[in-house]
Amino acid sequence: MRRRIDQKTKPPGSLGILEDIAFQIASIQNTLEPVLTAPAIVVFAGDHGATSAGISSYPKEVTHQMVLNFLAGGAAINVFCSTNGIDLSVVDSGVDFEFPAEAALVDAKIARSTRNYLEEPAMTGEQLQDCLEAGDRVVAELDRGGTNIVGFGDMGIGNTASASLILSAVCGIGIERCTGRGAGADEAQLARKTALLAQARARHPGPMSALGALETFGGFEIAQMTGAMLAAHRRNMVVLVDGFISTAAWLVARAVEPSISSHALFSHLSDERGHRLMLEYLGARPILRLSMRLGEGTGCAMVYPLIRCAVAFLNEMASFDSAGVSGPAG
Amino acid sequence: MRRRIDQKTKPPGSLGILEDIAFQIASIQNTLEPVLTAPAIVVFAGDHGATSAGISSYPKEVTHQMVLNFLAGGAAINVFCSTNGIDLSVVDSGVDFEFPAEAALVDAKIARSTRNYLEEPAMTGEQLQDCLEAGDRVVAELDRGGTNIVGFGDMGIGNTASASLILSAVCGIGIERCTGRGAGADEAQLARKTALLAQARARHPGPMSALGALETFGGFEIAQMTGAMLAAHRRNMVVLVDGFISTAAWLVARAVEPSISSHALFSHLSDERGHRLMLEYLGARPILRLSMRLGEGTGCAMVYPLIRCAVAFLNEMASFDSAGVSGPAG
Repeated sequence: MRRRIDQKTKPPGSLGILEDIAFQIASIQNTLEPVLTAPAIVVFAGDHGATSAGISSYPKEVTHQMVLNFLAGGAAINVFCSTNGIDLSVVDSGVDFEFPAEAALVDAKIARSTRNYLEEPAMTGEQLQDCLEAGDRVVAELDRGGTNIVGFGDMGIGNTASASLILSAVCGIGIERCTGRGAGADEAQLARKTALLAQARARHPGPMSALGALETFGGFEIAQMTGAMLAAHRRNMVVLVDGFISTAAWLVARAVEPSISSHALFSHLSDERGHRLMLEYLGARPILRLSMRLGEGTGCAMVYPLIRCAVAFLNEMASFDSAGVSGPAG
Repeated sequence: MRRRIDQKTKPPGSLGILEDIAFQIASIQNTLEPVLTAPAIVVFAGDHGATSAGISSYPKEVTHQMVLNFLAGGAAINVFCSTNGIDLSVVDSGVDFEFPAEAALVDAKIARSTRNYLEEPAMTGEQLQDCLEAGDRVVAELDRGGTNIVGFGDMGIGNTASASLILSAVCGIGIERCTGRGAGADEAQLARKTALLAQARARHPGPMSALGALETFGGFEIAQMTGAMLAAHRRNMVVLVDGFISTAAWLVARAVEPSISSHALFSHLSDERGHRLMLEYLGARPILRLSMRLGEGTGCAMVYPLIRCAVAFLNEMASFDSAGVSGPAG
């Protein structure tokens, strides 16, 4: 494979990260001629009990309002998916809203919200298990549709707080370093959020497994994403990890199944503070650095055209021999 | 415009650099609803007299061989343009080869090669003027075809050396800091290249204008690119600057007409050493950092889908009002 890449009509290594991506996808598919089929992004949406304590500057109604916006085609992820030829699915993992039965939504609702981790674990062990299985079902459906590359995004007011808590618990980093502005907290809101998350950590002290952290701090959308990532790896799909929330789901998935790392591409470095820490912990290199911090899988959608180009150069470029181009002298 | 961006259903600023791109393109087009039409990339190709002195590790025949590869569709830029829906033109600015009359090539050949700047200036003042006019004609043709966004790339064995010399002369930086590995020089080749370029600088000492540096060090493809960039600005196109060579052309164009900066997007940071110095000198922020160093306009082709998404979100995303989504509390 490396020889095939180096025989393309370009100086060896001159396509940089694109060469690494091409190599990785060819390795996943175990072929010199990889293909990307039915590219898909799944957005998991859920509400968080701790929003009642004021962990976010946005009201929790925004979660269901944004899901309706996804369904109407008006959100950033809709625009990016349609511009880049990516199929979009939206999953109700646990939104506090009764969607119309005819909504083009995958119904995987565990409950109308997680519980408030300031008082008790966000979910039960049974709910966690249900989440992992729901994620598996979503990916099985994509597999039936021929998808072999999938990105995972999120929507859920309060979910940067959950991701910060998971980061802190799984990686053993002080919560104040893990906590960021989320959808746009100002200084006072960030101080309040940090204090609340410190309380949450204190409420659930002691070591816990990655799955334990997920159960304790939620949310349902993150847990379903973890299940979906594990399933996508089992089904040999290329997995696009998005930003802070998506990487939190990945942290847990990787703890459960370390071999999944071979299948991941890290789309971008989010501006949300904790994301850099997560990527450093994982030893992962993000492909894009666009100062984005939106979630919804928007980083996956932005990186997809680059990945498509990486696969295309492998399949379509001429070799030095076939094009009659000379190599370097002596 | 900023209000229109901030009313989209996303936290303000959360699309990062994409918001800046959208703002810039809307400003260029002076509209709240910008459009990108007939996107194009032009590759200028030319040979360099100084290759006879051994400034490159590749034989100069690779220039014409690669032009034939472009025409046959086998190069990286062909693959990226066709994958991303970009029209590609190839210009013979001065390649040392007789192309068949029926070749799908813009014939703007100034001569079969520049002269060797180790002995005399690479081109005459008249040739420089001819180059600027040829670049103008290429862009006029694109304008007739409806293009309002254009990227500029290069092909020419020995042209990283010219770009290094232009960088050194225009920005007043020692030549050893400006000289890099080009298509892949090893340590010994890099040392030889650096020594030769130091000789070239010594052969043409004293202050010179940016246009003077271009005339002295070449090449024809860089000078035609400079002319094309100036013309694209006059015709109010968005200009995608590629890597080291393309930014060298931009350095000269900006010296001639400082107001062109409003129209430029810097596609990527090349791995070629001097590119970072150029961008720092210009105060320019590259959008992508993919460790690429190929030229041909490949950075422009890679960034185009992101730019398309930036324009699409401005035109297609719902606003908080229209989608019924709440803003931040209090």
